[in-house]
Amino acid sequence: MTTLNALETPAALIDTQRLQRNIERMQARMDTLGVRFRPHVKTAKCPNVTQAQIAAGARGITVSTLKEAEQFFESGITDILYAVGISIDKLPRALALLEKGCDLKLIVDNIDTARAIGEFGKAHDATFEVWIEIDTDGHRSGIKPDDEALLEIARELQDSGMTMGGIMTHAGSSYDYHTPEALREIAEQERAGAVRAAQRLREAGLPCPVVSVGSTPTALSAEHLDGVTEVRAGVYALFDLVMHNVGVCALDDIALSVLTTVIGHQEEKGWAVVDAGWMAMSRDRGTQKQTHDFGFGQVCTEDGTVLEGYILSGANQEHGILSHVGETDHDIRNRFPIGTRLRILPNHACATGAQHPHYAALTSDESVDIWPRFYGW
Amino acid sequence: MTTLNALETPAALIDTQRLQRNIERMQARMDTLGVRFRPHVKTAKCPNVTQAQIAAGARGITVSTLKEAEQFFESGITDILYAVGISIDKLPRALALLEKGCDLKLIVDNIDTARAIGEFGKAHDATFEVWIEIDTDGHRSGIKPDDEALLEIARELQDSGMTMGGIMTHAGSSYDYHTPEALREIAEQERAGAVRAAQRLREAGLPCPVVSVGSTPTALSAEHLDGVTEVRAGVYALFDLVMHNVGVCALDDIALSVLTTVIGHQEEKGWAVVDAGWMAMSRDRGTQKQTHDFGFGQVCTEDGTVLEGYILSGANQEHGILSHVGETDHDIRNRFPIGTRLRILPNHACATGAQHPHYAALTSDESVDIWPRFYGW
Repeated sequence: MTTLNALETPAALIDTQRLQRNIERMQARMDTLGVRFRPHVKTAKCPNVTQAQIAAGARGITVSTLKEAEQFFESGITDILYAVGISIDKLPRALALLEKGCDLKLIVDNIDTARAIGEFGKAHDATFEVWIEIDTDGHRSGIKPDDEALLEIARELQDSGMTMGGIMTHAGSSYDYHTPEALREIAEQERAGAVRAAQRLREAGLPCPVVSVGSTPTALSAEHLDGVTEVRAGVYALFDLVMHNVGVCALDDIALSVLTTVIGHQEEKGWAVVDAGWMAMSRDRGTQKQTHDFGFGQVCTEDGTVLEGYILSGANQEHGILSHVGETDHDIRNRFPIGTRLRILPNHACATGAQHPHYAALTSDESVDIWPRFYGW
Repeated sequence: MTTLNALETPAALIDTQRLQRNIERMQARMDTLGVRFRPHVKTAKCPNVTQAQIAAGARGITVSTLKEAEQFFESGITDILYAVGISIDKLPRALALLEKGCDLKLIVDNIDTARAIGEFGKAHDATFEVWIEIDTDGHRSGIKPDDEALLEIARELQDSGMTMGGIMTHAGSSYDYHTPEALREIAEQERAGAVRAAQRLREAGLPCPVVSVGSTPTALSAEHLDGVTEVRAGVYALFDLVMHNVGVCALDDIALSVLTTVIGHQEEKGWAVVDAGWMAMSRDRGTQKQTHDFGFGQVCTEDGTVLEGYILSGANQEHGILSHVGETDHDIRNRFPIGTRLRILPNHACATGAQHPHYAALTSDESVDIWPRFYGW
């Protein structure tokens, strides 16, 4: 344990009160909507965060890499959905998890991979549980709810002795909206598409126990989730400026920030130079095309008070350029003298977290616990 | 040691033949120009790469974090320039390096930090060597060559008993140009500004043994470096698509790529989905405003042949979207079947490398050594 003012900069800070509030808000919503909640742990990749999600009522987790599956299985979590279409060369690692007792679920959106999983499973006397990925918004992967391939893939899995666990979808395009109406619509589109796919499977006599949907914006916007059995979301635990622009969190819900120190000025330009560049913030410019462009992040005081109009307007590897968005602040040197410590709210929590070997978790105004996080594949 | 086809994807590949060629090209140029060369090791953060630079004739290194200084000092390198203005709270770490025998140089561009270094040095009976950072292109930090503060800072350092080691500048705006003429001009501007600052110091009776300049584009474009004692550059060792657009390397000079596997398709859109998303490529979109926008990267075959017109046009955390830049390729599924392995050339080698715990270094067409790299501060 250490203290906030003993931290060297740059450092990734988690405000644990905000984290806990965000976790409870989502879980309460899921309880009200009557669905299981399976958080996506790719955002923080941190056992402490995931433990808080499980303690609040989450059942099982979602991962984006087999490394996450292995790490979280080692920390005691068995119900794990690997929510990226598996490449065939990764099947031995998935098998190793299965053989250790991990209740790992794979996803698939094409007959070639379905066939390869079946063949590999049979050859190794293993029964993989597989979910079919459905594309409900044209965002990236998955097959359309009405695609003939849906039944074909399910039959292939059945015939090869694998477990047809259900279907899943992720309306990632929900990040592109910013009004409650549009978010409700995309949430309903995600729900309806998933339920339609499940219905088609069942009508064809194929099993579809799980109907899994989710993204942070749709999870927080759905009016009802009839026919859905579980929801997935990740960034809601930390939130970020992109989610703020989407309209699903306030600035003071954002639990992740980067602590930084002023190391120089260019007075005539109204710049303060800080020691958080893109290596600490990430290169994510997710707010660039949104209603409010926060540059590389929103500047706050060391204790977290938002300094309206001050953003990281530029970033080199280890230099951040802090400036006022409107008029040039010629008093920047006096406002933020050398050595001033600030917090910067990030555009994208998943990307910013990934730049840091650990988090400094603020458990009170001053006390800090170091929470590990991992990276790689 | 392993082999290329045994690597799991995504993986950061270094083509060691290209790396060696890039290193020799730069060193030969520096030898011809008659200056010392001090490579910036922030690009790869990998002892193997730095050893190759030293073996080729580099003298000393440049770092962007104290973590890099510590790691490379442990690996046996003593002459280290920490080329980011130090924040005062980091002085104890710098002192620890000094006391272990590291010939660490700090930089400063303001009187407050100069004073703090002097006071800290005196209080701990330590003599820091300090260089003054000069701003020759308005890019970020540093003081103008003709700024009165230049002499003031140098006198402050002298008076407090620190070593005035010289001046340094980095014309980072050279990344914004793409013609040989413009690059020669910015290189000359960088040189002339640095030499002017050194001259002013000497005329005032202040020492300025080192005159250090550099960026990859200016180092490769300068016509002469009269008055300069050393050059710094980093990305030249690996190169990337941004440097290709600047015009200082060919596509087949780029030594870093990300190995990836096709995991799905959206045929009607002409998409192949691969397992290298932004977590593997970084969120860097550095070519977005350049003459040729490569999206998140240029697609090549597994053996490195450029597939013209195919780029990573989109990226989610662990999904990359591969498509043709012109006409939609409706034959994408047959062209890149499930399981196809590809290499993606990155926009920005520093950012892409930082996403990976290690490099897979191709020592021949097939043999691969694993080279460690580190991250954090």
